[in-house]
Amino acid sequence: MDWSTNRVCRLLGIDLPLVQGGMVYMSGAKLAAAVSNAGGLGLIGSGSMRPDLFREQVRKCRDLTDRPFGVNIPLLYGHSRDVLEITLEEGIRIVVTSAGSPRRAIGPLKEAGCTVMHVVANPALARKCEDAGCDAVICEGFEAGGHNGREELTTMVLMPQCRAAVSVPVIAAGGIATGAQWLAAMALGADAVQIGSRFAISAESSGHDAYKQRVMAAGFGDTMLMMKRHVPVRMLRNRFFDEVAELEARGASGEELAELLGTGRARRGMLEGDLEDGELEIGQVSGLIDDAPPVAELVARLQREYAAARERLGAP
Amino acid sequence: MDWSTNRVCRLLGIDLPLVQGGMVYMSGAKLAAAVSNAGGLGLIGSGSMRPDLFREQVRKCRDLTDRPFGVNIPLLYGHSRDVLEITLEEGIRIVVTSAGSPRRAIGPLKEAGCTVMHVVANPALARKCEDAGCDAVICEGFEAGGHNGREELTTMVLMPQCRAAVSVPVIAAGGIATGAQWLAAMALGADAVQIGSRFAISAESSGHDAYKQRVMAAGFGDTMLMMKRHVPVRMLRNRFFDEVAELEARGASGEELAELLGTGRARRGMLEGDLEDGELEIGQVSGLIDDAPPVAELVARLQREYAAARERLGAP
Repeated sequence: MDWSTNRVCRLLGIDLPLVQGGMVYMSGAKLAAAVSNAGGLGLIGSGSMRPDLFREQVRKCRDLTDRPFGVNIPLLYGHSRDVLEITLEEGIRIVVTSAGSPRRAIGPLKEAGCTVMHVVANPALARKCEDAGCDAVICEGFEAGGHNGREELTTMVLMPQCRAAVSVPVIAAGGIATGAQWLAAMALGADAVQIGSRFAISAESSGHDAYKQRVMAAGFGDTMLMMKRHVPVRMLRNRFFDEVAELEARGASGEELAELLGTGRARRGMLEGDLEDGELEIGQVSGLIDDAPPVAELVARLQREYAAARERLGAP
Repeated sequence: MDWSTNRVCRLLGIDLPLVQGGMVYMSGAKLAAAVSNAGGLGLIGSGSMRPDLFREQVRKCRDLTDRPFGVNIPLLYGHSRDVLEITLEEGIRIVVTSAGSPRRAIGPLKEAGCTVMHVVANPALARKCEDAGCDAVICEGFEAGGHNGREELTTMVLMPQCRAAVSVPVIAAGGIATGAQWLAAMALGADAVQIGSRFAISAESSGHDAYKQRVMAAGFGDTMLMMKRHVPVRMLRNRFFDEVAELEARGASGEELAELLGTGRARRGMLEGDLEDGELEIGQVSGLIDDAPPVAELVARLQREYAAARERLGAP
C-alpha cells in the first residue's frame, strides 16, 4: 500500500494511517514508541498519570523512537492544565484532546505549533472542533472501550456523519481490531483509524497480565456501556460491573454511581489486575482478541488483513 | 459491478447482494416488488399483517413482479403459525424468520423447498441457525431500527464475529443506508446487506407521510434503543419515547413497559402518523436520510455510491 498521499500520514508525518489510542494504564512510552516505530502514531495516554510520571514517560518515549509520537490529554481531569504545560515544555508537537471542549486548550497548543486533534462522539462536536481550529477529528463510536458518548452512535453511522460535517481529516475509532475493520472504516470515508483495545492487549501495553488474559478470554457479549447517568464507560462484566448494573436497575443517580466508582477502580482492575472489584475497560472488539503479540507483529498482521480484505472486494 | 459469483445473489436468484428488510407497516407488496424489480430481494413484512391481509399482499406482489421476493416472519407473534401456513400454501420460496428460534419453523419450510434465513444479533445464534439448517444468516447490529438484540453488538463488531462463526452466507444489517456503508459491510466480510430504514423512507413504503417527514427531519442523536427490559426497540424521540424513558429511569419492570406499550402504538405512529403518542421505529441512520425517492432511483444511487467509495479505496 502506498499511503504517501494520505492526508493523515502527511499531517502527522507517519507511514501508516493508523493511530494508537491514548488509554489509561496501557499506553506509556513503551507502547507509544512501539507503535511509532512500526509506522503508526503512538500516543502517551496522560489520563492515568501524575504530571511527573507523564513528563518521565514523554522523555522515555523520545529515547525509544525517532518517529513522531503524541500525547492524549483528557480535559476532564483536574491535572490536565499541568499536563498541557508539560506537553508544551517538552516540545511535543502532536496532541489529542478528549472529554471536554477543544476550545479550552487549543489556543496555546496552536500558538506553539502543535497539530491538535480532538475526540468526538457526534458530528455537531466534530464541526465545533473544526471551527475551533483542530487539524483533525477522531470520531469514536459506541463500540469503543472506556469513556464514551451519550448519543450511542456507532462507528458505522458516526463516521459518515462526521465525514459530511467537516472538511478536516476524520479518524475513525471504535470497533477496529482487524484489517477488515480498518478497511471498513476507510470505506466509510475515514482518512485513518485509531485503534485502542487491540493495542491494549499487546506485549508492550502496561496493562496487568491478568487483565490482558481476561480480555483474551472474553466472549461476544462480555462488555456493555455502563454508568450512562455518570460518565458512560464500556467495561467487561465482573463483580464491579454487577454492582453498577444493580444500582442502575433501581434508578440510582449519577452521584451514587460516582460514589461506587470512587477512585482507583480502573487502576485496581487494569494496572493491578483485580479482576473482580476493579473496573476493566475495553471495547466490544474484545470478543475478537485472543492473543497479545508484540506491536511490530500486530501492525504487520493488520496490514496483511487490510490487503486481503481489499482484495476480496475486487478490483475497482 | 459483476455480482454473478456472489453467494447471496446465486442463493436467491437476484442481481444485487441487497435485501430489503421486512418491516412492520412499511413493507407490503408495493415496496417488496419495487425492490425485487430493481434487482434486490424484496420482503413482505408479515409482522403487522393479519393472515388474510398477508395472503392478499403475497398475491399482489406476485402480480407486481416476476422476480424472486420473500417474506419476513417474526416468530414471536401469535399468528406466526398461520402466516407460515399461508407462506407454504402460496408457494413462497424465500423466507426470513426473526425474533425467535429458527428451529421452531425450519422443518416444514425446508421440506417445502424454501430458502430459509434467520435474523441474529450474536454469533452464537448465527451458529445455531447454521446447525439448524438455515441457508444464510442476517446479522443485525445495535444501530438497526425496531426490534433489536440484548448484547448491543454493533455491525462493525457483530459482522466479523458472525463471519467467523459460520460458513453459510452472512448478510449484514444495521447502519446501512448509503453505498459507502454497503461497501463497509462487504469489507467486514458480508456476502450481502439488508437495508431497512432507507427503504422505509421511500416512495413505495406504506409508512404514513408524516412519519416519513419526521424521519427525514431527524438529527444524529434522535433515536435510542429503548425498552431493554421488555423487547429492545430502537425508536425516535417523541412524547411516547419520553414516557418510556421516564418509566425506565425509575427502574420499571418489563410488565410495566409492556402495559405502556399496549397494543397499537407502532401502528399509531408509523401507519397513522401520530408523531407524539405513536411509536416511531427507525434506525440510527435516520440522521443520514433526507429524502424519500422511488426505490428504482434509490437502488441506482446506492450502486453509484458503492462504486465511488470503492474507487476511493484505490486499486488492489
